[in-house]
Amino acid sequence: MSRQMHLGLFLLGTGSHVAGWRMPGAIDSFQDIDAMIRVAQIAERGLLDMIFMGDNLYGDPAAHPSYTVRFEPLTLLSALAMHTRHIGLGATVSTTYSDPFTTARAFASLDHISKGRAAWNAVTGSSPQAAPNFGRLHPNHAERYAIAGEFVDVVKGLWDGWADDAIEADRATGRYIDPAKVRSLDHEGTHFSVKGPLNIGRAPQGHPVILQAGGSEPGQALAARTADVVFSVVQDLAEAKAQYEALKARLPALGRRPEEVTVLPGVMPVVGRTSEEAFAKLAQLMGFVDATNALALLSDRFGTDMSAYDLDGPVPDLPIPDTYHSFARVMLNKARREGMRLRDAYNLMAAARGHWVLCGSAEEVADTLEEWFRGGAADGFNIMPSHLAEGLEDFVELVVPILQRRGLFRTAYAGTTLRENLGLARPPRREA
Amino acid sequence: MSRQMHLGLFLLGTGSHVAGWRMPGAIDSFQDIDAMIRVAQIAERGLLDMIFMGDNLYGDPAAHPSYTVRFEPLTLLSALAMHTRHIGLGATVSTTYSDPFTTARAFASLDHISKGRAAWNAVTGSSPQAAPNFGRLHPNHAERYAIAGEFVDVVKGLWDGWADDAIEADRATGRYIDPAKVRSLDHEGTHFSVKGPLNIGRAPQGHPVILQAGGSEPGQALAARTADVVFSVVQDLAEAKAQYEALKARLPALGRRPEEVTVLPGVMPVVGRTSEEAFAKLAQLMGFVDATNALALLSDRFGTDMSAYDLDGPVPDLPIPDTYHSFARVMLNKARREGMRLRDAYNLMAAARGHWVLCGSAEEVADTLEEWFRGGAADGFNIMPSHLAEGLEDFVELVVPILQRRGLFRTAYAGTTLRENLGLARPPRREA
Ligand SMILES: Cc1cc2nc3c(=O)[nH]c(=O)nc-3n(C[C@H](O)[C@H](O)[C@H](O)COP(=O)(O)O)c2cc1C
Ligand SMILES: Cc1cc2nc3c(=O)[nH]c(=O)nc-3n(C[C@H](O)[C@H](O)[C@H](O)COP(=O)(O)O)c2cc1C
Repeated sequence: MSRQMHLGLFLLGTGSHVAGWRMPGAIDSFQDIDAMIRVAQIAERGLLDMIFMGDNLYGDPAAHPSYTVRFEPLTLLSALAMHTRHIGLGATVSTTYSDPFTTARAFASLDHISKGRAAWNAVTGSSPQAAPNFGRLHPNHAERYAIAGEFVDVVKGLWDGWADDAIEADRATGRYIDPAKVRSLDHEGTHFSVKGPLNIGRAPQGHPVILQAGGSEPGQALAARTADVVFSVVQDLAEAKAQYEALKARLPALGRRPEEVTVLPGVMPVVGRTSEEAFAKLAQLMGFVDATNALALLSDRFGTDMSAYDLDGPVPDLPIPDTYHSFARVMLNKARREGMRLRDAYNLMAAARGHWVLCGSAEEVADTLEEWFRGGAADGFNIMPSHLAEGLEDFVELVVPILQRRGLFRTAYAGTTLRENLGLARPPRREA
Repeated sequence: MSRQMHLGLFLLGTGSHVAGWRMPGAIDSFQDIDAMIRVAQIAERGLLDMIFMGDNLYGDPAAHPSYTVRFEPLTLLSALAMHTRHIGLGATVSTTYSDPFTTARAFASLDHISKGRAAWNAVTGSSPQAAPNFGRLHPNHAERYAIAGEFVDVVKGLWDGWADDAIEADRATGRYIDPAKVRSLDHEGTHFSVKGPLNIGRAPQGHPVILQAGGSEPGQALAARTADVVFSVVQDLAEAKAQYEALKARLPALGRRPEEVTVLPGVMPVVGRTSEEAFAKLAQLMGFVDATNALALLSDRFGTDMSAYDLDGPVPDLPIPDTYHSFARVMLNKARREGMRLRDAYNLMAAARGHWVLCGSAEEVADTLEEWFRGGAADGFNIMPSHLAEGLEDFVELVVPILQRRGLFRTAYAGTTLRENLGLARPPRREA
């Protein structure tokens, strides 16, 4: 079988378009469990590899309307596990504001509950607004990645505390656990001191899948060393290809093969039966965008206070900030290439929060995804519907069948765990 | 309608009897999601008020065999919410090793997911073994309760950050949130500094139900001030009555009515069609108990190193420790009253980990529960099946119908939320 795409559904709010909830008939609440079940079932009907929940650790009523209020990802995904059978379930949990024992335990629990479908998006957390909710100061970029590296190692170490067959539960002898098959971790590091073992047996996947979404140099280094799947930000094929190659090129020196890391750029497809229908839909979506918070959103994404700038002036020459590295880099490069005004940059940010917007007929969308996939820029894509459930349904009903006909996407789930569906090996338990 | 009992199902391991998993046909894994779904559905068939998950934050392969490996409670209960419609879902989360923002958020999330059935058992955590998993030292008893008091206040404050109607999601105007209906908490206390607001809207129950399980003086003070339901440890009617009255007597000075706190002693019913059948079952259970770890378990429960004592000698005169106050007090009192040997104390500990064992025919069990309930020692009970699912099925099929015939227990769920079923008011949002 030739190489096939992997597809994730990225969920953050009622859709990735900032005002998508205003579309007629769109889901307008991100804390409506019945709506989330419906969405998960559509994604599974489309045979997608996984649902990938973004997250943030603060509630700002002035920004990001439709994703300010939301479920906590692990509780939501546990619930969705009960309404799906195959699709992977990825939750974002910050390495800056969580602790490794609880995090390792919760993902092992989700992996048991879902019978091997859990994934952890280990983010350092780009939003300083989280810090005061935890009585903390937001560490700087380098420090966040130093913490993250140690955090991920501790979590993986904890996941290896119990052997797969440590639990005997032998009614005859009364022996429940073979103590020789359990070990503590006894980690004493710079940022964490964690004894272990966990209070949950080894996960069905051995290790839940590790997702990573940082695009900076330390972000890429962490991904290359620890991640199974990388969620990237793209706007341009040549740039995406260079990024993809740079990441894969890091792997051999780390003893990993290129296939061991799956790179999925984020994309917001706006799909119509015809190109005109798609562009009309995008125009309708953009008609709901309100420029009131434009400079605030740009300030957040660019990491620079933009309040003094004119929306109708050019995008200025800004330094790449240490907050949203990939978003700022990719967007500033695009602005330079295309000579954008700030208003254009804002509109693009509002459309998909800085991710790639791909608008066209189902055939055109499939063509472009195929071009990127075959062209060495992606191993698949993180689909970011503009609004729900329509944006997802359009993709599942119109684009997926084309990809399937072209042999580019599965026609049935191959495995029972997320690792199997991603074509990733189950990690053996590391020796002590 | 006359006053009726409330009944919880306490779940910690494959049953409350330390070797219950060895019974023929018993569930022998506490990390088996299908088994847990079955148990939850039996409890709901029995119209129980709630499932109450105990928890611990360390894995000790040498102790407590059947509950060393387990699900993380919030992920498990979110999954169970999808297979039940009425029963409450209570999770233990420690105030010593968690943070208030994450805890408030997770329970609000479970409350949304379950449509108003979440409860939080706020424990200070009696096990010092947890500390090294979090790079911490275990605070002493007084300090743990000082932290717990502030923690619970912060969580309740966060739950009141959003008004019930703060989310407008008005497609026409584009206004999603009414900012006047959201406020931060700006808590700056001794142990926590938490800004808020949460990133989830107000919970269906206003506040998820607060459970509490500490029996010491500061434990009772915290319960009286903040809890909706108290889980108590009992061995003797007169002592339980005195405890019950003492707790209720604290309430008026705190501006609360006695009915606002529901007291549920833990009880392990061993039920037969006849008394003989019940005692035969208990004997069978006790036959599986292995005295190897007897002195270790007693050391843990009594908070004193017992390794130098003789299992066949008398229970010595021990001080009440600052670890498991209620267990030690209730058990040491019982030992004194009955002139127990250490082996007897161990057997009772092994039977239900220090909780009350009530063995008899279904009529006898119902009689005793009625006597305690009418006698002013309880508002209902936390049922702790010796093993699963049989121990629970016996109670639901044999005892519940008797309680119903006597008008002592519901014949249908009255409300849709846990608060409604417990007869507790929905807390209004506190003014800023
Ligand atoms: C595609 C993408 C998705 C992200 N999703 C989240 C998220 O859901 N929650 C979060 O706190 N941070 C998220 N981040 C932030 C990153 O984890 C990271 O903290 C930030 O981008 C800085 O890392 P970098 O400089 O390596 O890109 C995301 C970043 C990218 C690029
Ligand atoms: C009935 C009962 C159940 C308890 N369940 C738990 C539990 O599941 N997890 C936990 O960490 N502590 C649990 N505890 C411990 C208490 O929360 C508390 O930390 C300890 O008992 C000391 O408090 P006290 O001295 O007020 O009793 C329980 C205590 C009691 C009495």
